[in-house]
Amino acid sequence: MKITMAQLNYTVGDIDGNLNKITEAYQKVENEDGLLVCSELALTGYYPQDLVYQHGFVEKQLKALSKLQTITRGKPCGIVVGYIARNLSDVGKPIFNALAVLEDGKQIFEYHKKLLPTYNVFDEYRHFKAGNTESVFEYKDYKIGVAICEDIWAKTSYLNYPIDPIEQLENQNIDLLISINASPSNLGKQQGRFDVIASTAKRVNAPIVYVNQVGGNDELVFDGASLIVDREGKVLSSLASFEEEMKSIELNETQPGNFKPICDQELRFRQTVLGIRDYIQKCGFSKVVVGSSGGIDSAVTLAICAEALGNENVTAITMPSKFSSKGSVDDSVKLCNNLGVKLLTASIGEEYEIAVNRFVRMTGEKPSKITKENIQARIRGRILMEFSNQYGALVVSTGNKSEMSVGYATLYGDMNGGVNPLGDLYKMEVYALAEYFNQKVGREIVPQAIIDKAPSAELSEDQFDSDSLPDYRLLDAILKLYIEGNLLSEAETIECKQTLKEFKVSRKEVDDIHRMVNRAEFKRKQAPPIIRIQKKSFGIGRRLPVAAKY
Amino acid sequence: MKITMAQLNYTVGDIDGNLNKITEAYQKVENEDGLLVCSELALTGYYPQDLVYQHGFVEKQLKALSKLQTITRGKPCGIVVGYIARNLSDVGKPIFNALAVLEDGKQIFEYHKKLLPTYNVFDEYRHFKAGNTESVFEYKDYKIGVAICEDIWAKTSYLNYPIDPIEQLENQNIDLLISINASPSNLGKQQGRFDVIASTAKRVNAPIVYVNQVGGNDELVFDGASLIVDREGKVLSSLASFEEEMKSIELNETQPGNFKPICDQELRFRQTVLGIRDYIQKCGFSKVVVGSSGGIDSAVTLAICAEALGNENVTAITMPSKFSSKGSVDDSVKLCNNLGVKLLTASIGEEYEIAVNRFVRMTGEKPSKITKENIQARIRGRILMEFSNQYGALVVSTGNKSEMSVGYATLYGDMNGGVNPLGDLYKMEVYALAEYFNQKVGREIVPQAIIDKAPSAELSEDQFDSDSLPDYRLLDAILKLYIEGNLLSEAETIECKQTLKEFKVSRKEVDDIHRMVNRAEFKRKQAPPIIRIQKKSFGIGRRLPVAAKY
Repeated sequence: MKITMAQLNYTVGDIDGNLNKITEAYQKVENEDGLLVCSELALTGYYPQDLVYQHGFVEKQLKALSKLQTITRGKPCGIVVGYIARNLSDVGKPIFNALAVLEDGKQIFEYHKKLLPTYNVFDEYRHFKAGNTESVFEYKDYKIGVAICEDIWAKTSYLNYPIDPIEQLENQNIDLLISINASPSNLGKQQGRFDVIASTAKRVNAPIVYVNQVGGNDELVFDGASLIVDREGKVLSSLASFEEEMKSIELNETQPGNFKPICDQELRFRQTVLGIRDYIQKCGFSKVVVGSSGGIDSAVTLAICAEALGNENVTAITMPSKFSSKGSVDDSVKLCNNLGVKLLTASIGEEYEIAVNRFVRMTGEKPSKITKENIQARIRGRILMEFSNQYGALVVSTGNKSEMSVGYATLYGDMNGGVNPLGDLYKMEVYALAEYFNQKVGREIVPQAIIDKAPSAELSEDQFDSDSLPDYRLLDAILKLYIEGNLLSEAETIECKQTLKEFKVSRKEVDDIHRMVNRAEFKRKQAPPIIRIQKKSFGIGRRLPVAAKY
Repeated sequence: MKITMAQLNYTVGDIDGNLNKITEAYQKVENEDGLLVCSELALTGYYPQDLVYQHGFVEKQLKALSKLQTITRGKPCGIVVGYIARNLSDVGKPIFNALAVLEDGKQIFEYHKKLLPTYNVFDEYRHFKAGNTESVFEYKDYKIGVAICEDIWAKTSYLNYPIDPIEQLENQNIDLLISINASPSNLGKQQGRFDVIASTAKRVNAPIVYVNQVGGNDELVFDGASLIVDREGKVLSSLASFEEEMKSIELNETQPGNFKPICDQELRFRQTVLGIRDYIQKCGFSKVVVGSSGGIDSAVTLAICAEALGNENVTAITMPSKFSSKGSVDDSVKLCNNLGVKLLTASIGEEYEIAVNRFVRMTGEKPSKITKENIQARIRGRILMEFSNQYGALVVSTGNKSEMSVGYATLYGDMNGGVNPLGDLYKMEVYALAEYFNQKVGREIVPQAIIDKAPSAELSEDQFDSDSLPDYRLLDAILKLYIEGNLLSEAETIECKQTLKEFKVSRKEVDDIHRMVNRAEFKRKQAPPIIRIQKKSFGIGRRLPVAAKY
């Protein structure tokens, strides 16, 4: 029997489009004796959120399932696909996160996800009822077990689930376990996921076909990296990371394949690129505009946008003021030349002076330093939006995670944008990404001068980040321990703690940083979606009140 | 036995402050033979969200519980209070949403909430394990049953909970049911809640003490309206809506009291006022600034802010351009005079002209109509933020629900603000609120000219809302059916459908509005928190993807 893994990039809510993708995939293998395996909630894309409540939504994807069913008629190849099933009993929520097996024009099996993740970025208990169906079906003389994503994670989960769906599959002598997934990517995920898959194979004493979706949906990026392991957990075949791919394998062949988790640096780069590309394109845009300050964040943002969308679709605008160093504009010019990106110039001096004078007329007082700084950031933010309004280019904002953590960013100013690619990368990671990018391309794209200069918002005379923030190495370590907390690996935790020691930081300094993080919650509530990279990112995975004291 | 209901306004996360409030309440009745009943999660405030994961948070409120326990030592009055209990088993999530009974220095009873709401604005399954404890305890010869909020709603819930905690209390011959709650207010809630309480009393054949918290926490406003009903569901005593109050009742007395649900109009007004006041003050602000356009939305926003914070804490800024009618500035002057609110003026003409010229220099092209309109809105938004930065006044934004639905608002312009009081009120409701306010005060506060004029953003020559939107009566009806949907009452649904008929609207026109709502999701993701009024509001209760097709 030939198993074909379909690792596809679905768009949430686009039932017709997703059905087409699956249909095309099926047509390539419909005459094979086997099974096409698609990922979790493939028909709706993951995660549809409250779209499931929309009038006709569940109905429409059930019709799509029927169409899939029909195309299997008379063909030797079946389909395993994730969809939303109705709960036909009158107890519990009205829908299940389900798996269908389609064979020869019929649905021969229906399985309901048993463990509904409701932590971090997941909200499944909000919408679905937990399943209680059989998890084994017979197909062409094979006894096949099934699981949907979280179902295989009970044993390693810190949530102490009261049941373990895999336990129910042990000693059942299944020939194969099919696991369909929508498993979002973050640092460290591929290794952790592989460990769970390998140990699950040993527990059920059967090979596992693990199929994941790929692509970005809002904050989340799915890396694909689908694979097949044998009953000892050894990899037989694996699919690409961050790309669509289909691959077939004859179940009885046992040629060993290989799988090496993507390294952290490459993950940061490819996840950011795919996340930003899919966000922008799935929102219906093709072009973007970025404010180019001459600093490291905007430089890396521009490089990522050019990589994701093509340099012809990226416009940079440099917006110097009297506080901008000569180097800043020159560095922007050099960067944009290197990238082949168009650079526009808009000096903000005249508007800034008029705004300051008008403020004096309005209030009878001179604007304070912070007022003046924010006026500049907000004139710049508006100029980017002018370009966006005029040419239909999405503004991409550039704040990194260190800044977003402590609120070192101006709402309605440099925070303006439809999406933020760096908001889950700490400042030191942004530097590393610049160097990685230059290395990868094999020449200087991000000018060394940008990497070397002392970080500055250039909103006042001789202003540097270090005036109001600790060294970024130290800041990043404090922030990781506070925000990622016990989701960090032991090694990461030790490294961060060593950095704190090295800088001889006091408890008070650390508490001050924590307070800054808490106080900036109101800014993050109005920030554009941030492409998630770490285990704990700002956005749907971290829900905190604003009008609160803690 | 004397039961004292403590209907208090807690601040989320402020464990010390909340403990103080409860302690002060207790000291007033500590020598009474009876029970002080506080609301759900009183020690942490509702809803703490992911604060429960913060290092030391659960520990700290357990210490606060110990302190409460200590003060009951040697006193005849016990305490019933909501808190977070640890799950001491190794199965399931590590904490419970719990109720403690404290008597004479000891905790004599611990109950765990059985039904964890995880729909609309609720997220309890994310954090808590569902309880499975006994729900009856003995206290001074009384047999008392307990329930926490959702526990009494199983029978009426559309969620078809698999268990009904009240069923377990039927035929137990309890003398009293104590129900502690954090039940957020919305239109129609008080009547629905009363019906559930009354029918529950009949089911358990016992009086019910129903204690709710009061006050605003982010989007949610709790109305209090705590009450005691007898075993037939008749009201014995009730507490104020939207105010802190304590009240004691002798359990054996049976003098009938009364309770009349607050009317819709008064609810809209008082909920908005309390919501905005608490949001602003719990965020640590006392002053606000509002852009005054001379239109109905900013007028009602100013009236609400003056009512909530005192007119001396409110500043209005009128920001005319060449497109502003003379009436607009005059009406702002009159409104602010009526309210006793300071009005500043900042003409935006000069900056607007310079921005347009700079745009031409930057791009070589003339800005389009939409670009020019947004430039104006964003200069205005920035001027409000200048004032905010300089004087520490929170910007209050003014967009109503009809506008926020269809995206008729400028991001980083008139959407600027820390909080939005009208974002869950449809346009027609904003008009009604203006009239209600004038009536309540007994003189014209919102000038009739503002109520009468045709709505206009005044961003282009002779521009009116009716150029791009249907009549607001029709628009509101379409939006209610789409957004509130089957949460509307039957009467509301019929009324909306009749309005659609009256306007002879086509399917296509309705679909176009739906598409506008879907497309504006990205704006709402970056909007300030909206004070919730309707059954379905924008914000945490309505979670939709952005980069999606549907």
